[in-house]
Parts: sequence; structure tokens; C-alpha cells
Amino acid sequence: MAKLITLADVDNLATGSAFLGTGGGGDPYIGSLLCKEAIATHGPVQLLGLEDLDDDANVFCAAAMGAPTVMIEKLFSVEEAHRAVSALEDRLGRRATAIISAEIGGLNSVMPVAYAAMRGLPLVDADGMGRAFPSLNMTTFNVYGVSCTPMTIADEHGNVAMLETSSAKEAEDLARPLAAAMGASVSLSCYPMTGRQAKLAALPDTVSAAIAIGTAIRAGEKAISPVNRLLGALRASRYYGHAYRVFEGKIVDLHRDTSSGWVFGRCVIQGLQSSSIAEIGFQNENIAVRVDGVLKAIVPDLICIVDQETALPVTTEALRYGQRVAVIGCSASERLRTPEALACMGPAAFGESAGYVPIETLCGADPAG
Amino acid sequence: MAKLITLADVDNLATGSAFLGTGGGGDPYIGSLLCKEAIATHGPVQLLGLEDLDDDANVFCAAAMGAPTVMIEKLFSVEEAHRAVSALEDRLGRRATAIISAEIGGLNSVMPVAYAAMRGLPLVDADGMGRAFPSLNMTTFNVYGVSCTPMTIADEHGNVAMLETSSAKEAEDLARPLAAAMGASVSLSCYPMTGRQAKLAALPDTVSAAIAIGTAIRAGEKAISPVNRLLGALRASRYYGHAYRVFEGKIVDLHRDTSSGWVFGRCVIQGLQSSSIAEIGFQNENIAVRVDGVLKAIVPDLICIVDQETALPVTTEALRYGQRVAVIGCSASERLRTPEALACMGPAAFGESAGYVPIETLCGADPAG
Repeated sequence: MAKLITLADVDNLATGSAFLGTGGGGDPYIGSLLCKEAIATHGPVQLLGLEDLDDDANVFCAAAMGAPTVMIEKLFSVEEAHRAVSALEDRLGRRATAIISAEIGGLNSVMPVAYAAMRGLPLVDADGMGRAFPSLNMTTFNVYGVSCTPMTIADEHGNVAMLETSSAKEAEDLARPLAAAMGASVSLSCYPMTGRQAKLAALPDTVSAAIAIGTAIRAGEKAISPVNRLLGALRASRYYGHAYRVFEGKIVDLHRDTSSGWVFGRCVIQGLQSSSIAEIGFQNENIAVRVDGVLKAIVPDLICIVDQETALPVTTEALRYGQRVAVIGCSASERLRTPEALACMGPAAFGESAGYVPIETLCGADPAG
Repeated sequence: MAKLITLADVDNLATGSAFLGTGGGGDPYIGSLLCKEAIATHGPVQLLGLEDLDDDANVFCAAAMGAPTVMIEKLFSVEEAHRAVSALEDRLGRRATAIISAEIGGLNSVMPVAYAAMRGLPLVDADGMGRAFPSLNMTTFNVYGVSCTPMTIADEHGNVAMLETSSAKEAEDLARPLAAAMGASVSLSCYPMTGRQAKLAALPDTVSAAIAIGTAIRAGEKAISPVNRLLGALRASRYYGHAYRVFEGKIVDLHRDTSSGWVFGRCVIQGLQSSSIAEIGFQNENIAVRVDGVLKAIVPDLICIVDQETALPVTTEALRYGQRVAVIGCSASERLRTPEALACMGPAAFGESAGYVPIETLCGADPAG
């Protein structure tokens, strides 16, 4: 049965994908405005289950790349996304029959909805991360056999670059400085795939999951606290079922270092009723959380800092000294936990010396959960 | 009548183009080895006069871009050049029928000879600068109506990037960081043009001119000093006829700052029999020379530092404290002196506050000439 993404879903999708952004991915708020405008103009977007996709469908990604701090000042446009996608269509000699998100976390979850609306194409209910990651190569598309290139990058001046590389990592390494030179905020299209390839490499149901998570945070049962509603939605989801309130407290220290196009840093949170300390390291996204030095969750499992009262996700760039927050951790898809996936987006890819341990092992007996 | 570039011409071409490199363009020595190997393997290269080119010829550039210091460690290959050119041929759906140099100064004068030999194609006796310039947009191709893009960039790992920009300056601005990310030494193909376009936009006879200049420096009449032989060859040439020995002396001060992919700096030379001082500013290429504060030559006219005894050109990166050198200045093609050309590659493009004055005005009455 075909589902639709309507105007009423956009805010929930934006909030849910901000959670799945795990601190990064760019604030989806501005993208959600574009998305509403596109749906208002072109009508709602059909959300197509991965299993309902034709094997010979032409599935194209529309994504944004850049520095989150620039993205909120230099707005994306659907026209820019179209320049990237249509340049890739021209290169491949075939037209998109469906759009897919590369990344369901952050801005990249809403931009493809706006673009699908403009094209009158269905959006596949799936993505390549099930969360946000800082690099273009950190996708299940890449891990499970879809080539990242040919890839196209478009800026707002009408310039288009195309890359053909021998690996997704090399595509990332070339796209990043190019995006910086193009103004630190660009549209791109990559990982062009057939329906058959999408079924093998994409993570199904993540767009619906983001909408369900956002709905729980924003509009659930009033008698239940937003954080508990969030935990309930996660526990009912396909991937994020091992969900924990890892810590609660007040931000007492914060370091950010913006270099090479990323924000590196750490956030220290002190418990309100205890002397316990949680420390979260991030590279755009939150990478690992330790409580009193003990590891509680680590990438690719999800770590998200949310407002203690409203459960609204707080992005890395919005963290502020003194904020009262809850740290929510939850499991990633099993497809991010395989040896080949961990080699691409596990702890070592972020310079973490700790090996990967599933959150349910680290927190399973935790009474806070 | 068809001329050939044979093994015997390569050293002369390399020396002549080192002179026309005006300090930059990369040392052609290593390129000359590749060139000799290619000619030894594939035979000599036909040098085709611009006037003999068919109007509907498909003329492709094969060029190198990068940091000269890296270029001498990470060798170019003809295969890499071929990846760039053939990707552009694929994009345009037509095959090269002739090869042209974008830049006759430095390394980019010999690489196209090697590539033309490998392809069995003629090399056009022309280029887009009549010298070397630090930026891709500083060509007569650009000034006189040929689009710089589509442009392709290839590295030694098999990665290829393609750019389509609204201006040659934007192509330069994107290609430079991309070249850095690809290892600071890449092959590229740009300014694809027809024979008709080449006749309108290229500077004819510059390959022959480089060979003649190199021959005069390396192998002329023994009774005449190399510097005087060089001046004689310049005065007999089509463009470089206003040629002057601007200064002679010893290098007493030298500043180099490598940033954003260029070498910026200045070289101070003290006269041997006088207290006069010459100061030369450079951005890869020498930009302006002043003697005791008085301007003697300025870009786009050519300023080259040569060994005082042998007249062998000294590149920016080979300048050394204590070297005894002569500073040779000569006129550029009139097509580099038009208002539209000066806007692209005149003094202001290099941050020089002085306006352009032809070298024959500045040095015409100079007894040293």
C-alpha cells in the first residue's frame, strides 16, 4: 500500500531525522521549510517501500554536502539539487524513476523529499546510513556493492563537477575540498543504482522510522514525558530497539575544533544528583559516550543528546554550556555491525582505539534504561 | 611544409620553454625525458602550423597542473595524460585530431609532445600563453572566446574529475584544490576547440620559437656569449623582439612563501660593479622587475633570470643565494597586451598596483639592452 509524505509529516520527519543525525547531518529545520514549499507547490510525495521498487528502477540520490554552519546561511535550492541529479542522468543516459536519501539523519532526510516532490517521483522508504555519518563513503550502499561514482556536485552558480574514482573513500577525499571551493555548501548526486541494487544495499523503512520518532517527540501521549515517548518509539522500531537513557545532566564543558570541513570536539555533562560525568566525543556526529570513564555506547550505534524536558535533539553546533540534557543511545541496524561495515564506519574509522561493542552489551543491565 | 619534432629537438625545446617559463611552469627537464622516451618509441611528432590546421580539426590540450616541487618527485605519465584527454573525448563524443599546448613555458611545453607522439597525432605550433602563467584562466584561448570547460583532471590512481563551469576563472578556482587533493600533480585536458577556434585564439609559432631560443642558448656560435646569443634569438623572434639585458649581478636576498598551491616571493640581486639593486617579485612566474625602485618590466612581458655564464634559465624554485645571474626582459605577444588580455593576465591580476607599460617604453633607451 502506497504511503504519502504530506505537509503534516514534514515537521515530524525533520525532528526524527535530527535525532537520527546523532548531533550531525545539519539542522533539518531550513530543509523542512523548502520541503513544505515543494509539497505545497507540487503535492505530496509517494513513499515507496523498498520491497515495492521495480528491480530495474533507476534510483538516484539527491544529497547536500558542506559545513553545517554555512548551510544555515547559504540556502540550498531544489534547482541546485536538480542540476546535480540531471548532470548524472545525462552522464548515465537514463532518467531517475525514484529518489533515495543517502542519509536519513539531519538535512539530507528532508532535501530528497523536496526534490522528489519537484520531480513528481516517489521517494524510496530507505537510506544508506540509517543515521548520519560525516563521510560520503560511510554508507551501506558502499559496503554492500554500489559504486559511489560517477558522482556529480553542483553549486548555486551553475558550476558542476563530476568525479569518477576507484573507491568511495577517494570520492569523499576529492568531493570534500571541492565542496569547500564551491562555497562549503553544495548539492550532489552519487551512488546511482537500480532497484535490484537498492534492495541489496539500502536500509529499509528508515524514512517511516524517522517520521515515527519525530511524531513521538513532538506529539505523543501527554501523560508520558517526551524522553519516555522517544524511548518507546525507538523500542518499537526496526533497528533502534535497544534504546537507553544513558545519562542525564548539565553541560559543563565543551570543545569544538572546526578543521578540514568537520567539527571535532567533546562535550562533558555532569549529573544533577550525582558527581558522575559523561563525556561524548564527536566528529560532526557523536562518536562515543563514556560515563565515569566507562564506555556506554560507540559508533555505529547511535548517540544523541536531547533536551531533558522536550526530548528535542540538540545538534553538535547547538550544544551550549549549562544546557540540561539527556543522552540517548540506541542500536544501529545489524547491517552496520558486520565486519565489513565496521571497517568502513566503526570506531577505528573515527580514530577511536576502543573496539566496537553493541550498546545492548554495554548498557543491557543498566537500570537507567 | 611539415616540420618534425625529433629527438634532437627535445633538449632545445626544454631549454627554450624553461626561458619562456619566466621562472615558473615547472622544470621541463623531467618532462623532456618522458618526451624522448615517447619519441624513441613512437617516432617523431609532426609540428603543424596553425594556418595548416583544418577548420574542423578537433584540437585537445594535454597539460599538467600542480606544485613544481611535487612534480619533480611524482612523475607524470603519458597514460595519465591520456586518461584526461580520453575522458574529455568521451564527454564531447569526438576524437582529437591534433594536440596543442596550453602553455609553452615550462613543463607544459614538453608533455604535449610526448602525448602527441603516443597518440600519433600532430602537435599544433601554437599555444595559449606564449609563456607561462600561474592560472588556467590566463590564456588567449579564454580571452579570445574558447570555453575552458568541459575540463577533465586525472591522477595516477585512475581517478578522473570533470568540471563544467560558467567561467575559466571558476574552473581554475575549482581545479586548484582538486589538484591538491589528487596529490598536487595531475594531468588535465581543457579548452577543447576546433581548428577554426584555434586560429582565432591561439598564439602561432611558439613551439618553433621555444626550440629556436633553446638552440641559441645551448648550441650557438661559440664566439658569442650565451646571453648575447639568447638576446639575438629573441630579437629574431615573432613576439619577443624587444629584448633587454635588464640587470646583471648576484642574488643577495630571497623570500619564498608556498601557499594555496603557488610560490609567492621576491628575489633581490645586487650589481657586481655598482651598488644598484634589482628586485623581482614572483607568483610562480616572475611578475615585475624594478632596478633601484624604477620599473623595468612587468607582466605580461617576460622576465627571466638566467645564469650569467651559460644563459640557462633559473626557475623560481632553483634560485639560490649568491648565484650570478642576468635578468632578461622581453616583449609579450601584442595579443597579451590588449585591454581584455591585460584584464585577465596583466599586473592587476597579480596584485600589482603599477599599470602595464610595455618593456620597450620602459627600457627602450637603456644602454644595457
